[in-house]
Amino acid sequence: MIKDSQYDAGLELRRHMFGAAGAEDQVENTTDLNDKMQEVVTRYCFGDIWQREGLDRKTRSLVTLAMLVATGRSHEIRIHLRGGIANGLTEEEIRELMLHSFLYCGIPAAMDGFRAAEEILAESRETANA
Amino acid sequence: MIKDSQYDAGLELRRHMFGAAGAEDQVENTTDLNDKMQEVVTRYCFGDIWQREGLDRKTRSLVTLAMLVATGRSHEIRIHLRGGIANGLTEEEIRELMLHSFLYCGIPAAMDGFRAAEEILAESRETANA
Amino acid sequence: MIKDSQYDAGLELRRHMFGAAGAEDQVENTTDLNDKMQEVVTRYCFGDIWQREGLDRKTRSLVTLAMLVATGRSHEIRIHLRGGIANGLTEEEIRELMLHSFLYCGIPAAMDGFRAAEEILAESRETANA
Amino acid sequence: MIKDSQYDAGLELRRHMFGAAGAEDQVENTTDLNDKMQEVVTRYCFGDIWQREGLDRKTRSLVTLAMLVATGRSHEIRIHLRGGIANGLTEEEIRELMLHSFLYCGIPAAMDGFRAAEEILAESRETANA
Amino acid sequence: MIKDSQYDAGLELRRHMFGAAGAEDQVENTTDLNDKMQEVVTRYCFGDIWQREGLDRKTRSLVTLAMLVATGRSHEIRIHLRGGIANGLTEEEIRELMLHSFLYCGIPAAMDGFRAAEEILAESRETANA
Amino acid sequence: MIKDSQYDAGLELRRHMFGAAGAEDQVENTTDLNDKMQEVVTRYCFGDIWQREGLDRKTRSLVTLAMLVATGRSHEIRIHLRGGIANGLTEEEIRELMLHSFLYCGIPAAMDGFRAAEEILAESRETANA
Repeated sequence: MIKDSQYDAGLELRRHMFGAAGAEDQVENTTDLNDKMQEVVTRYCFGDIWQREGLDRKTRSLVTLAMLVATGRSHEIRIHLRGGIANGLTEEEIRELMLHSFLYCGIPAAMDGFRAAEEILAESRETANA
Repeated sequence: MIKDSQYDAGLELRRHMFGAAGAEDQVENTTDLNDKMQEVVTRYCFGDIWQREGLDRKTRSLVTLAMLVATGRSHEIRIHLRGGIANGLTEEEIRELMLHSFLYCGIPAAMDGFRAAEEILAESRETANA
Repeated sequence: MIKDSQYDAGLELRRHMFGAAGAEDQVENTTDLNDKMQEVVTRYCFGDIWQREGLDRKTRSLVTLAMLVATGRSHEIRIHLRGGIANGLTEEEIRELMLHSFLYCGIPAAMDGFRAAEEILAESRETANA
Repeated sequence: MIKDSQYDAGLELRRHMFGAAGAEDQVENTTDLNDKMQEVVTRYCFGDIWQREGLDRKTRSLVTLAMLVATGRSHEIRIHLRGGIANGLTEEEIRELMLHSFLYCGIPAAMDGFRAAEEILAESRETANA
Repeated sequence: MIKDSQYDAGLELRRHMFGAAGAEDQVENTTDLNDKMQEVVTRYCFGDIWQREGLDRKTRSLVTLAMLVATGRSHEIRIHLRGGIANGLTEEEIRELMLHSFLYCGIPAAMDGFRAAEEILAESRETANA
Repeated sequence: MIKDSQYDAGLELRRHMFGAAGAEDQVENTTDLNDKMQEVVTRYCFGDIWQREGLDRKTRSLVTLAMLVATGRSHEIRIHLRGGIANGLTEEEIRELMLHSFLYCGIPAAMDGFRAAEEILAESRETANA
């Protein structure tokens, strides 16, 4: 695997948004099964598209969460709530996003978003108080 | 139907985002079949949730589009591209949103978003030049 | 293909719900490409599950439409609105179903349902007046 | 928050369908994060749409479940199985709904519905025997 | 229930792909609630469509997994990874399928597929070593 | 944009599967709006993932179609039917794929696949006879 500046930028953004557990810990412990997928995430996702201008990172977190709530991806909603908070999303913005999703995705999608938000915001407050 | 301040605010926002064709023309020509649905859209959607603070209207247009692209709602993508442009979305922001959707929703969703964007942005340029 | 009583019952129900165009016209003009799929629809769908007791046919039309609205299958919504009207669904019940879908599937799903309902109910009134 | 007759009717229906745990316990313990969403559920969902004539409550439970099975919302399927039983749905009707979903949503959706039904119907029998 | 050659062929394929736990154990312990659904799975799914020529069983496992990843059916992905391995799918083919799904379904779908693959392939290696 | 060997391989595969209309015609006429998306399709999709060993191209076409049918992407189903035929998919394999999708995605998904298959296979026969 080539580790050039695109790769490095992707890894740095992963570290910023998800900590070492979502960056080095994952890319340094890949197996034959998942090494290419990890490269795709680092290089194409966080090293290319997420690096582009035109939408800042906080806004990219917001639209990412909108897409994840819409498609019912509960696991990734939690991951990107953490990443979004690292990118500056506030509790108020998260609440408004989940409320807004009720309009276009229905109550079950919104409730799933709120369950994730309650959990991750509580975790985030604990970390801040530690 | 009660036409109070919540209703009026919703109708005004519909007019701002979609013109008379997406506001008076629809609510004044309702039938037994669709009058309650039109009230839901005016009062609950644009008169309540869209009126809240915490996310400005341009950002609400952006997350609305993110949800519509994620769920493959081609018809509404076009409607909310028009509304989003009225709320201040730029061509660059629309492009970045569609590109970003490739990551979380796959190529077909992104391509569907780009097809709609090409169409509505061309229409928007024509109107500006008229 | 075996044409036994299950097959016959399925074909008769297709004729009742969709007319000859959705029954004989389809099963008698199959090709190598679609003959097995037509048999699946006649035998497994309308000849088995739809024949069961426990939910009457009007109610089966209602839950079928609920599933089609939820999954955004616009083409089949139209087909099953016609079939549902043949099974006794009223305009009021159709309206309430579409309104109800707003709660659990969001506005775009409901609006898609209403667009189909307007079209098929108009067609149905014309036929009644002819 | 205004607590008028629409709000009261919604809360009463929530209590009827889900018990105190799905009514008072939730609306009296809201936080800044979820108070508006709880109001949406009480007022717009159960206080408005669910109160309408044209489809009785048992039928509304049935179409709600049809939509939840179609969109794979396992958590809400369980909640609305409980609510549906409170609204009069029988084991036979629940079985036929899940079987019917196989036709329009595929085997995985139907199996997910059956897993939820087995769990909630067992729970319901225990409560009846207690 | 009629137990003819179609039924027998379906049960045998279920046993081959999922072991006794996914075959006899399920069909011999049915209840009023799930007996028809079990018959549908044995007779229509594994006794008819899966028995057809034109696509071999390994390829049918691959396209089944593609559909399950695309629709986010995590529970069935695990079941059909086991069935696919019994039908001859290799670790390399499973990896490539999950990577490929990133293109058409997005990263969350692919990551969900990889999580299931890691789990089931580890289980499969343990069984082979036992 | 860098046009290296990965880019060239991607463009060549696009040309092989979709003709000049799906290759040069698209990448040489990009605008500010879609140039990056076209690069993503050429480089990441057809220049990287589609180039990998482990699944041959015909099999990749088959799983791509499985994903597109499952997610209801009618437009892309047509595009990838053409590409799949170029990669060697036969009418029989296409029929079996669509039939198989009935099991895991339901009748509306399968019927949508058959409608696309009828259209594209007719087009393909005409071209062969021309």
